[in-house]
Amino acid sequence: MSLGQEAAELDARDPLASKRAEFDLDPQVAYLDGNSLGAPPRSVARRLEEVVREQWARRLIRSWDEGWWDAPERIGDRIAPLVGSAPGQVVVGDSTSVNLFKLLVAATRLNPGRQEILVDGTTFPTDGYVADSAARLTGHVVRRVAPGEMPGAVSERTAFALVNHVDYRTGELHDLTGITEALHAAGALAVWDLCHSVGAVPVELDAAGVDLAVGCTYKFLNGGPGAPAFSYVPARWQEAFDQPLTGWAGHADPFAMDEGYAGRAGISRARAGTPDILSMLALDAALDVWGDVTVGQVRAKALALGEFFLRCLDELVPGVEVLTPRAPARRGNQVSVRWPGAREALAMLTAQDVICDFRQPEVLRFGLAALYTRYGDVLRAARVLSGWPG
Amino acid sequence: MSLGQEAAELDARDPLASKRAEFDLDPQVAYLDGNSLGAPPRSVARRLEEVVREQWARRLIRSWDEGWWDAPERIGDRIAPLVGSAPGQVVVGDSTSVNLFKLLVAATRLNPGRQEILVDGTTFPTDGYVADSAARLTGHVVRRVAPGEMPGAVSERTAFALVNHVDYRTGELHDLTGITEALHAAGALAVWDLCHSVGAVPVELDAAGVDLAVGCTYKFLNGGPGAPAFSYVPARWQEAFDQPLTGWAGHADPFAMDEGYAGRAGISRARAGTPDILSMLALDAALDVWGDVTVGQVRAKALALGEFFLRCLDELVPGVEVLTPRAPARRGNQVSVRWPGAREALAMLTAQDVICDFRQPEVLRFGLAALYTRYGDVLRAARVLSGWPG
Repeated sequence: MSLGQEAAELDARDPLASKRAEFDLDPQVAYLDGNSLGAPPRSVARRLEEVVREQWARRLIRSWDEGWWDAPERIGDRIAPLVGSAPGQVVVGDSTSVNLFKLLVAATRLNPGRQEILVDGTTFPTDGYVADSAARLTGHVVRRVAPGEMPGAVSERTAFALVNHVDYRTGELHDLTGITEALHAAGALAVWDLCHSVGAVPVELDAAGVDLAVGCTYKFLNGGPGAPAFSYVPARWQEAFDQPLTGWAGHADPFAMDEGYAGRAGISRARAGTPDILSMLALDAALDVWGDVTVGQVRAKALALGEFFLRCLDELVPGVEVLTPRAPARRGNQVSVRWPGAREALAMLTAQDVICDFRQPEVLRFGLAALYTRYGDVLRAARVLSGWPG
Repeated sequence: MSLGQEAAELDARDPLASKRAEFDLDPQVAYLDGNSLGAPPRSVARRLEEVVREQWARRLIRSWDEGWWDAPERIGDRIAPLVGSAPGQVVVGDSTSVNLFKLLVAATRLNPGRQEILVDGTTFPTDGYVADSAARLTGHVVRRVAPGEMPGAVSERTAFALVNHVDYRTGELHDLTGITEALHAAGALAVWDLCHSVGAVPVELDAAGVDLAVGCTYKFLNGGPGAPAFSYVPARWQEAFDQPLTGWAGHADPFAMDEGYAGRAGISRARAGTPDILSMLALDAALDVWGDVTVGQVRAKALALGEFFLRCLDELVPGVEVLTPRAPARRGNQVSVRWPGAREALAMLTAQDVICDFRQPEVLRFGLAALYTRYGDVLRAARVLSGWPG
């Protein structure tokens, strides 16, 4: 059976194949960049129109009491099952960088008397920048360590470690449970960045005893460009959780307009300013695609997509250097290859409607968003890379 | 001439009367809460549909290079003339609270060696909460002072003062130029919160030599619920501007993915994380209403609206306690009255389609957003308050 026949058969048998129709995607396009920007669920445009024309235009200020003010917690509770969290522990709002700052300063206060912060040295750089800035304000010292070396590096000096669940560049999936355990054994807290795993890889925050986590919603949750991020603060830490962005929306009684700040009970104290409703309700609509599908199903298909893509690459582009681990347990939700002249290759792929992306140095990334990616799409990507004439 | 005839005549002569048609507002509604949430310009729904269905759905990730990434600076440059700023000094993104945190920590670094922060004691409380949090991290001491007393309170110990241009509760307009001068005379910096003045009152940041400012876009700029706020950092401070939310979007070369943070030149270093595009481009569309109108025209009408409303109150609700200064030079863009049983009054007003709001203790606020508020609207509000049967 040819790869083309095989792709057609895999797509025909795919139990998630019908989900693609819930996204507004050109059938001609192989969209392999969901690891950077998820595709738009059709529900988003409809919902935005309703929010503007009905809620904002007709109900005006009253909409704040009719579902807007509590949207951060309500939408957080929709994300919670996707990351293995009980309700009341996830809240949506602000960018990932801003959420990181909240959590990292709070983490220093949850584990006082320890001066060191370990940061995933392979991480998406914003994590390191924000850790450096938090450390400068709190008097901590940041040390960069590869995730696999964290268990050996953590010590009684370590307040917490910030680790990426999936490496943004190589797509390697790190051992959330094992690294968390090792950090805890040394009395350090575990703060996880789920940007590249939420909505793609099963995440069990409660079960693993993760202390704090942050995640992004514009990749595999399809919330839209720059959609609000989320913070996870488990119930056991909420009372002691003391974050620095003390805007009125996290206050115990925001409309009392008290002079002093007192954080609201529960996850709400991770809120900062007025929630950004248009983006937030776009995300809310985007989450509707999860109504009849589990992360487990998505993961199963994504692994199969990755497996097939790797075979296509092996066959059509022999000798290509794959940066992503081949073992399914160590693979996140993308396949990255080193490709000399990656910028030019990206232009060639784009010209043939294969949309992926490029990261320094010379890395092409192919995201495997299982809700809308077809086996035929990854085959096309491999064919274009092989010089196949389109 | 009766008040009713007078209102009709004022509306008929109003040079801004046609602007109301640019907003999606029910003709029956007297919307007097633009000081809390501006009304939706009709352009917003259209733009959001285009952003989702064309830019996001069709161009996908490529849209980041086609106007998304630079939107914070581009939209900042549209706001700049509304606050008396040269281009390249205003950037949009994040909530007001988050922007305040950036600016206040940065202000301590721009004026080192001084341990005191003065905060407007009458301010919207988020300003004080954020100042307290920033001071806790930087080792400063916060002192709360009424804006009018700042010139007497500032000293060689003061790093900066954070002052509200308009008091959110009473609507009093403070003397931005005079207070800034007094702060500068003592070697302190002046940080202004423009939330209740931008889009309503002429603001001359460059001319007054203001050091830093923050403002909100969901009130008189009609950007939508929780729309992104903005920061102003004048050119003379940009090189030294050193803010704590060091997300990748403020980096000199964000896609180099360098390990260390280096802020981009210019206003961009006030950016933090990935910009929230849906909300940001909704704001962009909302700013179109300023194409053929100046803040001066808006201010002239708003003062006339306020004058007429005060006369209506005096005549129809004699003895009502008006909290807003009557002198035009000291009035912001709202009229506040003390009203025992304000909550019940609010319900009665709302039932008659007069939408305003309520703040503790027993204050009714009537916003005078001149782009869509009619003289007949403020007369209706006074009539309902007078017990007039609707």
